Amino acid sequence: MKVLADISLVPIGVGASLSAYVAACERVLDEAGLAPRLHAFGTNVEGEWDAVMGALRRCHEVLHEMGAPRVHTTIRMGTRTDKPQTIQDKIDSVSRLR
Amino acid sequence: MKVLADISLVPIGVGASLSAYVAACERVLDEAGLAPRLHAFGTNVEGEWDAVMGALRRCHEVLHEMGAPRVHTTIRMGTRTDKPQTIQDKIDSVSRLR
Amino acid sequence: MKVLADISLVPIGVGASLSAYVAACERVLDEAGLAPRLHAFGTNVEGEWDAVMGALRRCHEVLHEMGAPRVHTTIRMGTRTDKPQTIQDKIDSVSRLR
Amino acid sequence: MKVLADISLVPIGVGASLSAYVAACERVLDEAGLAPRLHAFGTNVEGEWDAVMGALRRCHEVLHEMGAPRVHTTIRMGTRTDKPQTIQDKIDSVSRLR
Repeated sequence: MKVLADISLVPIGVGASLSAYVAACERVLDEAGLAPRLHAFGTNVEGEWDAVMGALRRCHEVLHEMGAPRVHTTIRMGTRTDKPQTIQDKIDSVSRLR
Repeated sequence: MKVLADISLVPIGVGASLSAYVAACERVLDEAGLAPRLHAFGTNVEGEWDAVMGALRRCHEVLHEMGAPRVHTTIRMGTRTDKPQTIQDKIDSVSRLR
Repeated sequence: MKVLADISLVPIGVGASLSAYVAACERVLDEAGLAPRLHAFGTNVEGEWDAVMGALRRCHEVLHEMGAPRVHTTIRMGTRTDKPQTIQDKIDSVSRLR
Repeated sequence: MKVLADISLVPIGVGASLSAYVAACERVLDEAGLAPRLHAFGTNVEGEWDAVMGALRRCHEVLHEMGAPRVHTTIRMGTRTDKPQTIQDKIDSVSRLR
């Protein structure tokens, strides 16, 4: 099952600067072949369900290894059976109507 | 890795009444042994990472089987390495301060 | 316009224990007459749009006053025009189908 | 109080194609001067608290006027008192570490 997702990890207990942690997770998502697209509150990814969820788990593990005692994640995700759709398709379908 | 999560599934393209779909996912989470606690915008669950993610995938599959062409999910989730914590622990730690 | 919402505030840069901050926001939501119902990843509230949003703003201000340099909030919220609905209605509509 | 936010509206009860609704909200956010940046699961905006919340309310109203009986919104938002920060600052702080 293909899934599109928007992932946002917030390490807790490491101070107010989080960018090094976000960058580390970006590398994990990139290496997993999920074509991450960073925005100011998360990252869009696309791939097979197990690949996306496996990479997300790896992000949690990496942030704990970097010293974060807690990791708080929010995800938006979508699956659909009516037609194939990519991240770019979703953006294009709105952009052409503006 | 143990994870606490708050899961909210919204089937899209099935009309404005969603409760039968939410109830179907509740049953999946219950049968997976995740001790779901329903609230008005989602369900709290707790369990091993793979058990939680496997049940979430099954919820998507079940909603598609029920006829939903799209399923939109939002999740909040947390892992921590500093101490064990349950759903009830989280609620109690706030409630005793009110 | 009536709104139902699920609010989760995470203060950043204050260490790994967040319960005192969550409890402070609960008091704000309570005093605003929004009938907050706490769960492990947030709080369900209901009220007029401006009352809910005003209380949320006050929560941010209170957490900053308590010393949090950053406050990260996630919200799920819903408005509907087809029928009146309360927090309890939403829970009941699912519970009776289980 | 300045706020950065990531807004995602899902109209419910209007079928499986949502792009016209998302585009309508984009226009509202644009006209409100919030410099919206669309991604596949939402839109990043920045502005004064009341301007952001007022535009969000207007999005709900517009989608109901377009025929949606329910509108389900998820938001991530952040305020900070330690330093000024823009949407672009957040993206840059991560990008330079990759």
